[in-house]
Amino acid sequence: MKEYRVGIVGATGAVGQVALELLESRKFPVGELRLFASARSVGKTLPFKGTQIPLLPLSQDAFAGLDFVIFSAGATRSREFAPAAVKAGAVVIDNSSAYRMSPEVPLVVPEINPGDLKLHKGIVANPNCTAAILGTAIWPLHQRAGIKRIVVSTYQSASGAGAQAMAELESQVKQYAAGQPLTRSVFPHQIAFNVFSHNTAIGEDGSNEEETKVREELRKMFHVPGLPVCITCVRVPVLRAHSEAVVIETEKPLSPEEAREILSQAPGVTLIDDRKANYFPMPIEASGKLDVLVGRIREDLSNPGGHGLALFVSGDQLLKGAAWNAVQIAEELIK
Amino acid sequence: MKEYRVGIVGATGAVGQVALELLESRKFPVGELRLFASARSVGKTLPFKGTQIPLLPLSQDAFAGLDFVIFSAGATRSREFAPAAVKAGAVVIDNSSAYRMSPEVPLVVPEINPGDLKLHKGIVANPNCTAAILGTAIWPLHQRAGIKRIVVSTYQSASGAGAQAMAELESQVKQYAAGQPLTRSVFPHQIAFNVFSHNTAIGEDGSNEEETKVREELRKMFHVPGLPVCITCVRVPVLRAHSEAVVIETEKPLSPEEAREILSQAPGVTLIDDRKANYFPMPIEASGKLDVLVGRIREDLSNPGGHGLALFVSGDQLLKGAAWNAVQIAEELIK
Repeated sequence: MKEYRVGIVGATGAVGQVALELLESRKFPVGELRLFASARSVGKTLPFKGTQIPLLPLSQDAFAGLDFVIFSAGATRSREFAPAAVKAGAVVIDNSSAYRMSPEVPLVVPEINPGDLKLHKGIVANPNCTAAILGTAIWPLHQRAGIKRIVVSTYQSASGAGAQAMAELESQVKQYAAGQPLTRSVFPHQIAFNVFSHNTAIGEDGSNEEETKVREELRKMFHVPGLPVCITCVRVPVLRAHSEAVVIETEKPLSPEEAREILSQAPGVTLIDDRKANYFPMPIEASGKLDVLVGRIREDLSNPGGHGLALFVSGDQLLKGAAWNAVQIAEELIK
Repeated sequence: MKEYRVGIVGATGAVGQVALELLESRKFPVGELRLFASARSVGKTLPFKGTQIPLLPLSQDAFAGLDFVIFSAGATRSREFAPAAVKAGAVVIDNSSAYRMSPEVPLVVPEINPGDLKLHKGIVANPNCTAAILGTAIWPLHQRAGIKRIVVSTYQSASGAGAQAMAELESQVKQYAAGQPLTRSVFPHQIAFNVFSHNTAIGEDGSNEEETKVREELRKMFHVPGLPVCITCVRVPVLRAHSEAVVIETEKPLSPEEAREILSQAPGVTLIDDRKANYFPMPIEASGKLDVLVGRIREDLSNPGGHGLALFVSGDQLLKGAAWNAVQIAEELIK
């Protein structure tokens, strides 16, 4: 079996560490592994298949000989170093927002648009976590009935802001338990016992950057340039899975029963929709799962005769929302 | 100044205690105060204006001479004892769902439909917390532009399930901090670090009871029988204020600027809408406030030309969502 030389940029980050675990657990045919980290981590090691892999400094000539490089160290790092990795002959799978909307870069969720992978010129972009989770859940319904409008409110976990943000939520909870004042340095507001509008800048149309990403990335992945999307992105005190309350309007009629049937067989999706037991997708159950959980499927009662459905989605932000989708892309590329 | 003889049924509950505090802080002209509680609390006392008021057992003949009785001990208690209070000559202000949809019982938020108070025949119903908070926020927009559709996702606090539910969230957080397993007895699922679909039974149309209440109560308070409402009610690990991501569609055009202007002057509402500072309504800031916080007002980008607005609301579930609205009703009735 052919083996591949793989690099991870941002190996010590929340997404990088999960990507490393997945390469091992998925038995990805890794021949050589190069783990890149920031200066303060260089010299340390991370475990992979029972051995300790050294953390290396990032440089323009660090990529020679690599087949794949997974970037998850933020858009600035990707812009600075991804071109060098491509020049060295590697395929870059970029978790950052740097290249997602570049026309020459495919933006791929393998369950949605695997065909776009063929168009890559060295870089494949991994979508925003909220967009990947939402897209995976509703794409099968779009294929059947043609989605013409999406209204979504999110319940986003701390992990989307990185490992330090998760630590801040844990630390605030411990401070609360100890009767101490709650301190913060990552989020602009207290995250424990609170919810707040997503902490990205607000643009002229009133959307924050997260909301704009989800809207534009869904349109690109679905190949529907003007797809109408109304989205409100909200942080909640959850550690690592995002949830989303979704309302869709479709061109063709689509009953809750049909939607349930479609989603029960869709790739990348697990249906959890037990009305009697009041059991639906929850972030604590989505955490650690590769699949996106979908349920609470019902008619949109505000849209009678208008082909509307409401549903609830939970997906692991670090897995389908980031590292798993990236590793899935690598798996597709070596098929 | 005339004084009134007031009773509180469920005085030791989360809502009852806040009602008691409000009667004092609002300087409601209380002549006599009777506090009713369950058998296990009888004999204990609660403080009011510097004196200790004894907790009394509830009985059919406990209401003689009272002018107002605030009921907040659940629908079963209200059905059993409210008629006796009315018979004794008191006006019942009922926090439970028992009488809200009865045609002869006005369901009132004083900022919305104070005129309905005149129609009471002894019982005035206090709306569901989510409906009261949502209604207060969007009623001024409805008056101006005529709301014809509402899509809302909620971020509901533990307090909506009572004092024991708040204690369960605190206890789980303390267990987490101590590295212990998280236990639960009130909610059907872990509430710390989780979100879940509202823990009420699901009806045939797929709505849970909370969602049905909000839909029906808004229609009744707004006097718009068929108002189209799509609502997803979700619990989040927040202690006592509910938040709601709201999308409305209006008959007449309504720009975000106009909506902001209207809400900046509306009664019962505080506008918090600072895009530059990324500062919007949050439950930790709504907690303890009589007003409902409203902000993040922007165009619904999925509804171009269709007069759509998105906004975010936070309101104290125990105040505007329950006890404050009840005391406000009493204040209106003695005007």
